Amino acid sequence: MSGFRGSVPFTEDWRHFQVERADGVATVTLDRPDKLNALTFQSYADLRDLLTELPHRGDTRVLVLRGQGRSFCSGGDVNEIIGETLDMAPDQLLAFTRMTGEVIRGLRECPIPVIASIQGTAAGAGSVLALAADFRVVARTAKFAFLFTKVGLSGADMGAAYLLPRLVGLGRATKLLMLGDSLPAEEADRYGLVSELVEPEDLDAATDKLARRLAEGPFQAYAQTKALLTKELDMSLSGALELEAMTQALLMNTEDYREFHAAFNAKRPPKWQGR
Amino acid sequence: MSGFRGSVPFTEDWRHFQVERADGVATVTLDRPDKLNALTFQSYADLRDLLTELPHRGDTRVLVLRGQGRSFCSGGDVNEIIGETLDMAPDQLLAFTRMTGEVIRGLRECPIPVIASIQGTAAGAGSVLALAADFRVVARTAKFAFLFTKVGLSGADMGAAYLLPRLVGLGRATKLLMLGDSLPAEEADRYGLVSELVEPEDLDAATDKLARRLAEGPFQAYAQTKALLTKELDMSLSGALELEAMTQALLMNTEDYREFHAAFNAKRPPKWQGR
Amino acid sequence: MSGFRGSVPFTEDWRHFQVERADGVATVTLDRPDKLNALTFQSYADLRDLLTELPHRGDTRVLVLRGQGRSFCSGGDVNEIIGETLDMAPDQLLAFTRMTGEVIRGLRECPIPVIASIQGTAAGAGSVLALAADFRVVARTAKFAFLFTKVGLSGADMGAAYLLPRLVGLGRATKLLMLGDSLPAEEADRYGLVSELVEPEDLDAATDKLARRLAEGPFQAYAQTKALLTKELDMSLSGALELEAMTQALLMNTEDYREFHAAFNAKRPPKWQGR
Repeated sequence: MSGFRGSVPFTEDWRHFQVERADGVATVTLDRPDKLNALTFQSYADLRDLLTELPHRGDTRVLVLRGQGRSFCSGGDVNEIIGETLDMAPDQLLAFTRMTGEVIRGLRECPIPVIASIQGTAAGAGSVLALAADFRVVARTAKFAFLFTKVGLSGADMGAAYLLPRLVGLGRATKLLMLGDSLPAEEADRYGLVSELVEPEDLDAATDKLARRLAEGPFQAYAQTKALLTKELDMSLSGALELEAMTQALLMNTEDYREFHAAFNAKRPPKWQGR
Repeated sequence: MSGFRGSVPFTEDWRHFQVERADGVATVTLDRPDKLNALTFQSYADLRDLLTELPHRGDTRVLVLRGQGRSFCSGGDVNEIIGETLDMAPDQLLAFTRMTGEVIRGLRECPIPVIASIQGTAAGAGSVLALAADFRVVARTAKFAFLFTKVGLSGADMGAAYLLPRLVGLGRATKLLMLGDSLPAEEADRYGLVSELVEPEDLDAATDKLARRLAEGPFQAYAQTKALLTKELDMSLSGALELEAMTQALLMNTEDYREFHAAFNAKRPPKWQGR
Repeated sequence: MSGFRGSVPFTEDWRHFQVERADGVATVTLDRPDKLNALTFQSYADLRDLLTELPHRGDTRVLVLRGQGRSFCSGGDVNEIIGETLDMAPDQLLAFTRMTGEVIRGLRECPIPVIASIQGTAAGAGSVLALAADFRVVARTAKFAFLFTKVGLSGADMGAAYLLPRLVGLGRATKLLMLGDSLPAEEADRYGLVSELVEPEDLDAATDKLARRLAEGPFQAYAQTKALLTKELDMSLSGALELEAMTQALLMNTEDYREFHAAFNAKRPPKWQGR
């Protein structure tokens, strides 16, 4: 994580969702449970900005996205977003839709592993937030709904038409994005969309356990795994092999790699420094 | 759908398969049931040309591909195509193989959603037609066979080596294209190759139901979902996010998007205009 | 297979694993069973060099990779490789990591189909060797472990972050490469990572049967299927369609294609020449 900072201060007061930081785990809780945590222009902006500055703080090794109440996130608010966009000029519309894409780019390009902890419904933009996370811990009763065509828009929204075929294949992605129907958690699991399927009452514990495991592990190794998984979707085999060779040659100079070897020969667990 | 036309007339007489148009649904029925609907040079040409002009007619919102009798399509005719190609010069061979690829490009680039309705066997070129459709409604007793190596050719034919790994993953695609063995519908469904698996007697009804749903839905939203799913297979995340942002900003000016909002607040179903 | 050779002699004495050649099938057996067939600098070099020269010999139609004893391959040796790299300069490290990538490039770009025959554990580099093969015949008791992060390195190693998402999807690949946990054969099969799942006692027979089938089949057809599956992962739909059209037009001049047609009309099995 870059420690390089100039004049820009850190934001201490996130006003459009809750942010907690503890023991290397930052937790963002969408907190409009009466609206199933629908997103607003401001909460999109806060997500975009948080993802930009979080890696610079140097105190976060895992980011958890979760929602308060019975759902994860129902997507853009029907009146606070859809209603407002009806009167917007093209430049404003594009500024909005680009911002939503920047949130997804932030999730994918941020070196910090992201866990989406999902109960109830992940719909519309909420389903794409989940899709762009590295891990989806999902309650067995949850469901996804990429319902953009149901509001008259393209099913390709916030990178969904890029990401979803790369997770579940083009055939299933076509059906999900064209029709916009609900996808129950167990079917999502068969499709490869679920990292860990849990009983609803175990969701928080499973999320915490995975977050702790990642926070206590070799951070650079995780960050580079994520970065290369993201970048190599857009690379040739030949470029990917060179990038992986460079990456490993660099990481072979880390303390964590040396520590693994020492621990292995001493028959003890390694103590990861994350550098 | 482009209404821009110059001098080129529409084709009213398709001579190498049946074409019906009703209520926004165009249905192409391959109709050589005694040959399991094997393709000929002429039926390839007709498919290529139909896919070019159909979007220009402005009267079609869904295209259904089906076969008469007990099979969907057994691929290129062994004597009428394979036999003929044995005596062809390189320029003729290439003109033929390029035409077959143009059919697949037409299926993928045509803005109209395509449903393949599959019973019996989809073999060789027939399996790639099915693969290039957006939806595959498949009878439980059907099977796919990418059998090109069994005739001594590359399993990579008509884009199969591009499309199949993007639907079922490289490992399964390798096995299917290298060996050319039959893939039963239920296994194809587990692989993600089937959009809807139905009992044989329900195939027509399920196909019609999906076609009607698509024909009555928000056409621009569907067309842009298909276009972006197709294009973003070849794009970077960064380019894809920009394209999706532009697309949604444009679609936010459609009547269908405005209609969704009005219908939502009036608690009634939207009446889609497709524009 | 290229018969073009200049001054470079063939290697007759492979010293870091066993090589057998019989009836068109070359079999590489990793033979350090007491170390679970861990790789050394020398066995990596031998794999790289064998993959370069094998296609030039003209006597091999299938390559089988297998391990002696109870495991396939446990990856880079903890002391003979990891221990040694701790004292290497950057240029040496990069020479090593690039060599490991060249082995994977060789597996993918070699025109000869490769079968990995897997029992026990395929771990670390061993799991990526398996991943880069065309076919994985896997004993039901085997397991994969992409355990690179457990030694403090990137889970993206030897092309794993390129290949694995293209076999099992980005979500499952992320979980496997980030966490490095074991993946049992049956789950790997559900993910699409297994070409043929067999009882442990049937592993050798199933491997032999597939190798014989490939060795006796239309070699050019297989080689071009493999080549295009590999190349088209990095190509656009439009480029892929043109490449497939060129490929088929060329293969329509092969003896095997002509033989298929003659055999079909004579109602006898074709006798493939592989040309």
